[in-house]
Amino acid sequence: MSTKTISVVRDLLATNKQAAAAIRQELRSRGILCVNLLSSPGSGKTTLLESLSGRFKDRYRMAVIEGDIETERDAERIRAKGIPAWQITTGGACHLEAKMVGKVLGEVPAAIDFLFIENVGNLVCPASYDLGEEIRCVLLSSPEGDDKPAKYPQAFLSADCLILTKSDLFPHLPFDPAKAAAEALAIKPGLRVFTVSALRGEGMDALAAYFVEALARLRSAGA
Amino acid sequence: MSTKTISVVRDLLATNKQAAAAIRQELRSRGILCVNLLSSPGSGKTTLLESLSGRFKDRYRMAVIEGDIETERDAERIRAKGIPAWQITTGGACHLEAKMVGKVLGEVPAAIDFLFIENVGNLVCPASYDLGEEIRCVLLSSPEGDDKPAKYPQAFLSADCLILTKSDLFPHLPFDPAKAAAEALAIKPGLRVFTVSALRGEGMDALAAYFVEALARLRSAGA
Repeated sequence: MSTKTISVVRDLLATNKQAAAAIRQELRSRGILCVNLLSSPGSGKTTLLESLSGRFKDRYRMAVIEGDIETERDAERIRAKGIPAWQITTGGACHLEAKMVGKVLGEVPAAIDFLFIENVGNLVCPASYDLGEEIRCVLLSSPEGDDKPAKYPQAFLSADCLILTKSDLFPHLPFDPAKAAAEALAIKPGLRVFTVSALRGEGMDALAAYFVEALARLRSAGA
Repeated sequence: MSTKTISVVRDLLATNKQAAAAIRQELRSRGILCVNLLSSPGSGKTTLLESLSGRFKDRYRMAVIEGDIETERDAERIRAKGIPAWQITTGGACHLEAKMVGKVLGEVPAAIDFLFIENVGNLVCPASYDLGEEIRCVLLSSPEGDDKPAKYPQAFLSADCLILTKSDLFPHLPFDPAKAAAEALAIKPGLRVFTVSALRGEGMDALAAYFVEALARLRSAGA
């Protein structure tokens, strides 16, 4: 990259970092746990949120910010579950930025427990943009292959939690979840790893409990 | 984006366009058909190339340029099939650029028929970068879902050919190949559509024939 390009990128990231810090402070003060979901297209982010909405129902209130290049499809799927959702269409941009989230934040009801942000489907670029989340989850679906963490390291390095999705397809695929997890853990020791089939519900209780525990920690830290 | 950012992006794309035009001219003069493969991570680009190498064996000579953020894994898989392969590791960058391809081009043997470029796994950013290819193929794997073309339109709009991969998983998935194809064709009328399972070989003959016909056209145009 040219010096000019590098300086523009650095300016963008610095501006994003400031906006993200403001969002994080705002959400902490409201006692809302914010989770940023990152993955390739079609790894199952929306289906995971649909499944979580069923688990949280009547116990926790969630809201969702959907990031996509085009269409309102994902927000419509979430709204169909009775969950408030805002669609950000980036119109070509390959990732969400904190200022895009900031513009929506005023509309998010104060009385929620969880704010999930589903990033644009892209295992590369979103990893560089802090959105003010408390927890960053990277999803890796079994059909993508167990060799992906080392090939796309930044997404795994920047995450707090790895969710191996579509476990219902394990019998039909050359995918070794232990290998995928070990490779991700070599990049990011301490990464929490979950294996789920959001379609069948397998592993979803443990994942939901992880978010509930994080919410309790956030609120006790803020109390 | 700021005016400064927009101008840097425009400069980058203009520089890339010039480099791509030089590569296209060079490869046409050598009678080599260049194909750029775009898709999400794990859609099956490398497996498709492995399968093609078996089909072309003893009849056509191919070479492969592999683009990845990190690791030599894909080039090693291709070399294991006896195919010359060069790995470009972008070190964080989310797409290949023509100048990266240009640097490798001198090492590519003159006496080949096909040069395949496997782009970085990313359904967004690589779509904006012409690499000097004759044919651009976008792969969409069945587990990614049939709703992806409208959500990631640029990749489909910029492609000549859509390859629906992992057809062996159709029985296990809520994926309608006709719906995916229709949505892609609404974005890009005239797109050639193939459905394959590179693992099982289904549909690979038709795809190989498409590349062979394009090679013949390229050579008769250059004669």
